[in-house]
Amino acid sequence: MNIPSPYSRPVNYYETDRMSIVHHSNYIRWMEEARLDYMHKAGVDYPSMEADGIIMPVTGVKCSYKTSLRYGDTFTVKTTLTGFNGIRMEFSYKIYTDDPDNPCCVGESGHCFLDAVTRQPVSLRRHGLKYYEIGVNLLAAEQSAGKE
Amino acid sequence: MNIPSPYSRPVNYYETDRMSIVHHSNYIRWMEEARLDYMHKAGVDYPSMEADGIIMPVTGVKCSYKTSLRYGDTFTVKTTLTGFNGIRMEFSYKIYTDDPDNPCCVGESGHCFLDAVTRQPVSLRRHGLKYYEIGVNLLAAEQSAGKE
Amino acid sequence: MNIPSPYSRPVNYYETDRMSIVHHSNYIRWMEEARLDYMHKAGVDYPSMEADGIIMPVTGVKCSYKTSLRYGDTFTVKTTLTGFNGIRMEFSYKIYTDDPDNPCCVGESGHCFLDAVTRQPVSLRRHGLKYYEIGVNLLAAEQSAGKE
Amino acid sequence: MNIPSPYSRPVNYYETDRMSIVHHSNYIRWMEEARLDYMHKAGVDYPSMEADGIIMPVTGVKCSYKTSLRYGDTFTVKTTLTGFNGIRMEFSYKIYTDDPDNPCCVGESGHCFLDAVTRQPVSLRRHGLKYYEIGVNLLAAEQSAGKE
Repeated sequence: MNIPSPYSRPVNYYETDRMSIVHHSNYIRWMEEARLDYMHKAGVDYPSMEADGIIMPVTGVKCSYKTSLRYGDTFTVKTTLTGFNGIRMEFSYKIYTDDPDNPCCVGESGHCFLDAVTRQPVSLRRHGLKYYEIGVNLLAAEQSAGKE
Repeated sequence: MNIPSPYSRPVNYYETDRMSIVHHSNYIRWMEEARLDYMHKAGVDYPSMEADGIIMPVTGVKCSYKTSLRYGDTFTVKTTLTGFNGIRMEFSYKIYTDDPDNPCCVGESGHCFLDAVTRQPVSLRRHGLKYYEIGVNLLAAEQSAGKE
Repeated sequence: MNIPSPYSRPVNYYETDRMSIVHHSNYIRWMEEARLDYMHKAGVDYPSMEADGIIMPVTGVKCSYKTSLRYGDTFTVKTTLTGFNGIRMEFSYKIYTDDPDNPCCVGESGHCFLDAVTRQPVSLRRHGLKYYEIGVNLLAAEQSAGKE
Repeated sequence: MNIPSPYSRPVNYYETDRMSIVHHSNYIRWMEEARLDYMHKAGVDYPSMEADGIIMPVTGVKCSYKTSLRYGDTFTVKTTLTGFNGIRMEFSYKIYTDDPDNPCCVGESGHCFLDAVTRQPVSLRRHGLKYYEIGVNLLAAEQSAGKE
C-alpha cells in the first residue's frame, strides 16, 4: 500500500491573530484537514464511514510550536499513521513550509471509533472490516517506511 | 411580554486578526450568540426546540461595520425581533461598547423553520404552537417599544 | 486584463455545525479566501500591499443562503469586482458546487483602503498607483464581460 | 496572593460540529480564554502587557478528551499556573460542567515571553518586573494550595 502524499495549502487571512501570526488553535484544525485528506487518499472516505454508522472522535491532541507561520505562507502537513488496532488509532504530524526536517510545528492525535447512534466504542475488525484492513496495511507500510 | 435584555461579553484574543482588530466574520457569530441568548431569555430554549424536531437555519445575514473592536474591549449586542409569522423570522442587531446609539456594527439576519429530519419548511403555528405564541407576543412588544 | 478564475476547495469538517451543514459564518470566511485569491491572480498580492502600508478592511457583508453545503462537498466561489474607485471597492460572490447558475449562496462585500499606521482612509490613486491601475482595468474587464 | 476563580460560560452553537458535539479545536481556544481571564484576575492585563512590548506566544498545547460537551451545556475551566521562571510559563486546565473531579477534558499549555518588535525572548525579571513578581507569587500560592 502506498503512503499518502502530504497535504498542502496557503494560510488563510482569518487564521491569523493580532500577533500577526497564525493562531495556535488553527494547527489543530490543520491536523484534522491533513488527517482526513490522508485517509481519503488511502481509500477511506470519512463521509462514507459516517454513513456506515461509524464516527471517529478525537481522544487527545498534542502540538509543539517551533516557529510561526504568517499570512502569505503555504504550509505542508506530513501525516503519519503511528498506531492502529481497529479500536484506537494514532497519528503524528509535521507541519512545515519548505523543509520537512525543519518543521514549524509537530503534533500528535489519538482517536477511537464509536457507533454513530449509541456512541459506544466499536471495533472496526468486527463492524468495519474494509476499514480495518486498510488501517492494518497502512500501519505496516508506515512502519516499514520508518525503518528505512 | 418583556423585551429580553442585551447580551454582553469580552472580545476573545483568538477573534482578532493581523490587522489587530476583530475579524469581521466573528460579528456574524456574535449575532448568533446574541440571538440564541435573546430567545432563551424570551422562554425559547433552542436545544429543546431542536429536541422537538424543529431547526432554524439562517437564510440571510447582513452586516455593516462602522468602527473596529479590539482585544480588551467588551461588546454588547442589542437584538430586536423585527419580523415573525411562524414560517419566517427576522432580527436586527446593534453591536456597541458604550453607546447603543453609536454602534460599531449593525446587522440583520433572516431565518426559516425546518423539520429536523425531512428538512422541509414547517409552520410553528401548526407544529410548534408554544413557540409561535412567544414569537407573536414578542414581535408585538418590540413593535410597541419601537413606537415609543 | 484577464478575469481571474474561480476559487475552489473541499469543505472542512470543522466548518460544519450540529445541523450537519456548514455553519453560515464560514461562507463569510470563504468570501475572504476567494477575494484574496482573486486579487492575487490579478497581480495584487495582499501581504505586499500590507507591507506597502495599505490595509483593506471590510465595511460591509451580505450573504443569502439558498441550499446547504455539507462535509464531503467541494465548493467553488466565482468572485466579481463590481465597484472600484481607488477609495472604495465592492465584490459580489456566487458559491456553488456544480452549476454557477444555481448557487448555494450569493454574497457581497464592501471595502475601503486605510493607511496601516494612522488607520485613515487613503486613495490608491495617490498612494498606490500600481494597485489603482489594476483595479480600474479589472473593473472594466468585469463590466465588459457582464455585458456579453 | 489569592488564586483566581474559575472561568465559566455557555457553549456557543457555532462551536459544535456535525457529530453534534463541540469540535475538539475549541477546547484549545477555551484554554486561552480561561488563561487570559486568570491572568486578568491576578492583576495582569494582557492588552497592557502587549502595550508594554511583551507578547506571550504558545510553545505547546496538550489536550485529553474524556466526554463530549454539547450546545446547551455550560462549562467551567479551572486554570492552574504550574510553572513560571520569568522566561517560560506553564498552565494546566480542567474543563468540566458540574464536578471538577470529573472533567470532560484536561489540558496543558506552555508559553514564552518575546519582545513584540524583535520577537526575541525576554526575561520578565529584567524587562517586566511587575509581571515577574505576580508570576512568582502566584506560582507559590498554587504550589501551596496543591499541597493541601
